[in-house]
Amino acid sequence: MIIIMEEGAPDQAVNEVISMIEAEGFKPFVNPGVERKVIAVLGVVNVEKMAVADKFAALPGVERVTLVSEPYKLASRAHHPAGTVVTVRDVTIGSQELCVIAGPCSVESREQTLEIAHAVKAAGAHMLRGGAFKPRSSPYSFQGLGREGLEILAEAREATGLPVVTEVMDYHECEQAAEYADVLQVGARNMQNFRLLQKIGSMDVAVLLKRAFGCKVEDLLLAAEYVMAEGNAKVILCERGIITFETSTRFTTDINAIPVIKHHSHLPIVLDPSHAAGDWRYVADIALAGIAAGADGLEIEVHNNPTKAKSDSAQALTPEKFAEFMERARRVAQAVDRTISTPSMVM
Amino acid sequence: MIIIMEEGAPDQAVNEVISMIEAEGFKPFVNPGVERKVIAVLGVVNVEKMAVADKFAALPGVERVTLVSEPYKLASRAHHPAGTVVTVRDVTIGSQELCVIAGPCSVESREQTLEIAHAVKAAGAHMLRGGAFKPRSSPYSFQGLGREGLEILAEAREATGLPVVTEVMDYHECEQAAEYADVLQVGARNMQNFRLLQKIGSMDVAVLLKRAFGCKVEDLLLAAEYVMAEGNAKVILCERGIITFETSTRFTTDINAIPVIKHHSHLPIVLDPSHAAGDWRYVADIALAGIAAGADGLEIEVHNNPTKAKSDSAQALTPEKFAEFMERARRVAQAVDRTISTPSMVM
Amino acid sequence: MIIIMEEGAPDQAVNEVISMIEAEGFKPFVNPGVERKVIAVLGVVNVEKMAVADKFAALPGVERVTLVSEPYKLASRAHHPAGTVVTVRDVTIGSQELCVIAGPCSVESREQTLEIAHAVKAAGAHMLRGGAFKPRSSPYSFQGLGREGLEILAEAREATGLPVVTEVMDYHECEQAAEYADVLQVGARNMQNFRLLQKIGSMDVAVLLKRAFGCKVEDLLLAAEYVMAEGNAKVILCERGIITFETSTRFTTDINAIPVIKHHSHLPIVLDPSHAAGDWRYVADIALAGIAAGADGLEIEVHNNPTKAKSDSAQALTPEKFAEFMERARRVAQAVDRTISTPSMVM
Amino acid sequence: MIIIMEEGAPDQAVNEVISMIEAEGFKPFVNPGVERKVIAVLGVVNVEKMAVADKFAALPGVERVTLVSEPYKLASRAHHPAGTVVTVRDVTIGSQELCVIAGPCSVESREQTLEIAHAVKAAGAHMLRGGAFKPRSSPYSFQGLGREGLEILAEAREATGLPVVTEVMDYHECEQAAEYADVLQVGARNMQNFRLLQKIGSMDVAVLLKRAFGCKVEDLLLAAEYVMAEGNAKVILCERGIITFETSTRFTTDINAIPVIKHHSHLPIVLDPSHAAGDWRYVADIALAGIAAGADGLEIEVHNNPTKAKSDSAQALTPEKFAEFMERARRVAQAVDRTISTPSMVM
Repeated sequence: MIIIMEEGAPDQAVNEVISMIEAEGFKPFVNPGVERKVIAVLGVVNVEKMAVADKFAALPGVERVTLVSEPYKLASRAHHPAGTVVTVRDVTIGSQELCVIAGPCSVESREQTLEIAHAVKAAGAHMLRGGAFKPRSSPYSFQGLGREGLEILAEAREATGLPVVTEVMDYHECEQAAEYADVLQVGARNMQNFRLLQKIGSMDVAVLLKRAFGCKVEDLLLAAEYVMAEGNAKVILCERGIITFETSTRFTTDINAIPVIKHHSHLPIVLDPSHAAGDWRYVADIALAGIAAGADGLEIEVHNNPTKAKSDSAQALTPEKFAEFMERARRVAQAVDRTISTPSMVM
Repeated sequence: MIIIMEEGAPDQAVNEVISMIEAEGFKPFVNPGVERKVIAVLGVVNVEKMAVADKFAALPGVERVTLVSEPYKLASRAHHPAGTVVTVRDVTIGSQELCVIAGPCSVESREQTLEIAHAVKAAGAHMLRGGAFKPRSSPYSFQGLGREGLEILAEAREATGLPVVTEVMDYHECEQAAEYADVLQVGARNMQNFRLLQKIGSMDVAVLLKRAFGCKVEDLLLAAEYVMAEGNAKVILCERGIITFETSTRFTTDINAIPVIKHHSHLPIVLDPSHAAGDWRYVADIALAGIAAGADGLEIEVHNNPTKAKSDSAQALTPEKFAEFMERARRVAQAVDRTISTPSMVM
Repeated sequence: MIIIMEEGAPDQAVNEVISMIEAEGFKPFVNPGVERKVIAVLGVVNVEKMAVADKFAALPGVERVTLVSEPYKLASRAHHPAGTVVTVRDVTIGSQELCVIAGPCSVESREQTLEIAHAVKAAGAHMLRGGAFKPRSSPYSFQGLGREGLEILAEAREATGLPVVTEVMDYHECEQAAEYADVLQVGARNMQNFRLLQKIGSMDVAVLLKRAFGCKVEDLLLAAEYVMAEGNAKVILCERGIITFETSTRFTTDINAIPVIKHHSHLPIVLDPSHAAGDWRYVADIALAGIAAGADGLEIEVHNNPTKAKSDSAQALTPEKFAEFMERARRVAQAVDRTISTPSMVM
Repeated sequence: MIIIMEEGAPDQAVNEVISMIEAEGFKPFVNPGVERKVIAVLGVVNVEKMAVADKFAALPGVERVTLVSEPYKLASRAHHPAGTVVTVRDVTIGSQELCVIAGPCSVESREQTLEIAHAVKAAGAHMLRGGAFKPRSSPYSFQGLGREGLEILAEAREATGLPVVTEVMDYHECEQAAEYADVLQVGARNMQNFRLLQKIGSMDVAVLLKRAFGCKVEDLLLAAEYVMAEGNAKVILCERGIITFETSTRFTTDINAIPVIKHHSHLPIVLDPSHAAGDWRYVADIALAGIAAGADGLEIEVHNNPTKAKSDSAQALTPEKFAEFMERARRVAQAVDRTISTPSMVM
């Protein structure tokens, strides 16, 4: 940690900073300097950094405090140099084979879900997504089928063999959801729902942790740290678009985040092009970009009848468009030394 | 609702849109147009708008769908032209008297909390804030004292007469918190925790609903609608800064949001300059700006010893600085025909 | 154009809007509506839209005005459905063969420029970039060699056969630059330097128009319209990252913009991953993403000795890394049915 | 300057950084550290910082480089602790008396300009604004009257005694504009038009430098440094809103920027609430916020007939609304120990 003093800060202020560093049990190291004093703080344990930095920032004469290393540990590549592969039943995320998660935004009915599940399976998807508990901006929008939705998802898994990903919105839903699903999804709006993160951290279940649209990559990795600090290392990260001034798409895909996360963390990262674009016309091109940039997988919304969908109609691909996309995706994956296997047989 | 077709969309696409409008039970109205067809949709009930718009956007040949009026109803000024005054014990929010909520970020100890409570009371604050349950970006930061913190807050209320505002992070905490506190605060990171909003909506308690730093004003009003749709109209909105590209302050105060919210909604709006700036040096000036722009109150972090604070040290005012600020605030309030009463006596 | 009235706007306000529509020579069309009146305005010529919309927005009782179609015409795909191919000497931009523009940020010396030019040519680049006039955030940074730089670029073209792209910062530099260079580049900071755009519009020279980091796609297309309105249709667009709250990279690559621009415009679009990332470690992955998303080319900074570079050191690839990248790029291009030809011979 | 090495960077990389620091003529200072090496660089002259930092960032093993002090000098408060007062004829900007600059967006005619000039003078404005050269997003919008507009402005100054502010878009317009106007305005879109900044820097004329909507406060101060480095210290800064994800107003007023600029710089700062809001309904409240936050003045668009205005109709105040606003402004100014004098007589 580096403390940068204000220009012309008096010696007394510098001494007070030094005293506090020592009082907190750390070791100060004052750099010679002309305009401003710079004081390095040695011995701060990785995980205390943010709180300690904030305290020093409050001292008189301190201009600002800069962290030297990441404020997370378990999620960092420095701590775990090899890339992590998360295994869900017989599917891997983070291996050479990319993982394509596809399915409807919401589970609306048994028929709809089974039809879509078979279709995405036939096109080569590795997992099925579907929401039983739906976070919606408006209280008047469809809120999901709840337990009935979970049962439908489990039936679809039975029928297709595809592991199931489903969203949880509250920590009291986690146990129930884990009875039916293989991967618990934490949505963008809950990325900093710390109660939820801690609960999942205490369970033995994989989690798909989606980046909040107003949060930095660093915050996403701190959210992963919340889960990992409780003992659960099966964390799959997901970039799904951030909020920016551009209005031609609903969110802006932060494609940079993929290599940035690969640099700072060992966790697998998948891209959700559907929410990132908010418009089915752009989903395939953005998804291909994600593969080329190094993503370990994709999460894509597919609906058999988008204009009848109860949520996110505008961004869903039809099964036909999804199958076409998978052909394109297979070629781009090979071009970057990854694979998307051809489905051996259509069920 | 207005549906804008793609340029050159074939008649068949237009007819399909018209059929679907009718099938959904609405009335289509096709505008004559040269480049593009524009179709108005009549009869959509206010609260279904977002879901209906999304479905139409998925139809072939549709370029985009625009809402004509706000997607919320109970929170809108059109629905309730007069400004709402929320009353908490003998304190009003939304009246001519501004409401200043002050106190520490976290309840750390009995002594700390009582000392600060007496100090802010003496300076003229109307309510006491303090966190017992703390949402923290890092899992290694101080997480709050929990129930013990609530008890300390209740004692501080007893001692000073100040109503208490405290944060809840999960819907299972609400009942317990409401036993001790007068206003439940929903923090920025939980603004779209819909389970939490619905729970508070079903209770008879005032709520201070803080804007998520990555969400639009419209989303804040939709979150208020979640609470109000369950029957609870005691909603106080709070602007606390949004995330932008500017890095000289932690967030960017969206001062525009104050008159914008006054235009679109009848709910009272307070400004939190502490989180909006993230730096105590700028808090007072930003708070004065909030008063001048028409805010109904302020929420300000005050700590008796900022460099020992367990959270948000860098943005807390000392009691002395807070008292100085209140003198300045009183003058600006009067200049815009509002008041901040002088404390009749120091306890 | 659609005018949306405030809820409860009196008839008089509606009539005033109608009168003004007629007075301006357009045809009003009032939609029936319950909550709000909506008035379509017919007959507004494409290119007057923005100014007309602004006037109506100022009328009493008007909530807002929405454009139905794009405010640009010559740059729109509706106006010119087939994709445009810009030809520069024997190089095409917008064809099946991608166009890779590579070279140093600044022309620093004859030796440096020639060495880099030969290296990028050998690796398969199609054009050479290099700055003789440099826009720099700080007045104390290197400002470019001026005319001497242009002469060096011309010599490098002579030696390698690569057409040359160079930046112009002011309209008085355009003629001189065009004597030496094949493509004039308008940098992000000058995207709305309208004098410059109009000057280039009056010339017979190709222009590489970079998106301003604080401007929407629509503004980029309006800037292109400035050039095209003067008669010059040889416009190549360039996405180079936008400014957002994310700080782990210098800018955020708006990868969505590539398919969005392909949807709205016929102009070719290239991606500059170097400025978009600001860090050489991420350049190759982002560039591959651009190819996969459908870009027509790339602009990449290459320096033979980055730590001695006079500008943008941190984002330049070495010639070795660039050559490795080109091998990867060739494979991804093929996977999306584009090509990057292998250099027939190394000079 | 502080160089932060990657975790586990080998000794060779550290040594290479040290050698390069010495080779560039600076003094390295290696901090002891456990996880990462941190190297301070001493002796870098203020104004070279950005370029030097960028070079070090390109070295192998370097994670990132942080500046310890501001990259500008002449514009910094450290260099010039007392606040600067710019004097334009008998008007001061930066003194206790606030400076209100008012007038139309564009000079459209003699009658319009004179009428508005007399009206704003009567209400107490200190200077007249009006554009003769107009930067417009669309090439089809009104581009200004040019020299004729300048002549009208000069006549309005003659008639009212108000000094005149007018925009220049290109450095070749500066001399001509300075013959007629008292303050040259550099618009947001030209804040990084470095040729223009340097030209004004070489002249003896005050400049109103508006912040680009996509640029940080630091970039604004670097733009001021461009002007000052050429010898012209009469720089007035202007905050006019930044681009963010919020769409309920055209831009987001960065009210934080006012105290932040006061902290880092000695230059006067005025707020333009008209462009910051883009909607006349919000202009007065935002302007009052600016005064309360410590701005030294305001720039406000006033039009005698907004719906006939040739540009920016939606954000202009009528003379009546402006006069009402000035009454309110006077009171808020007094509340923060500033003044807006009452016009002694109406001309």
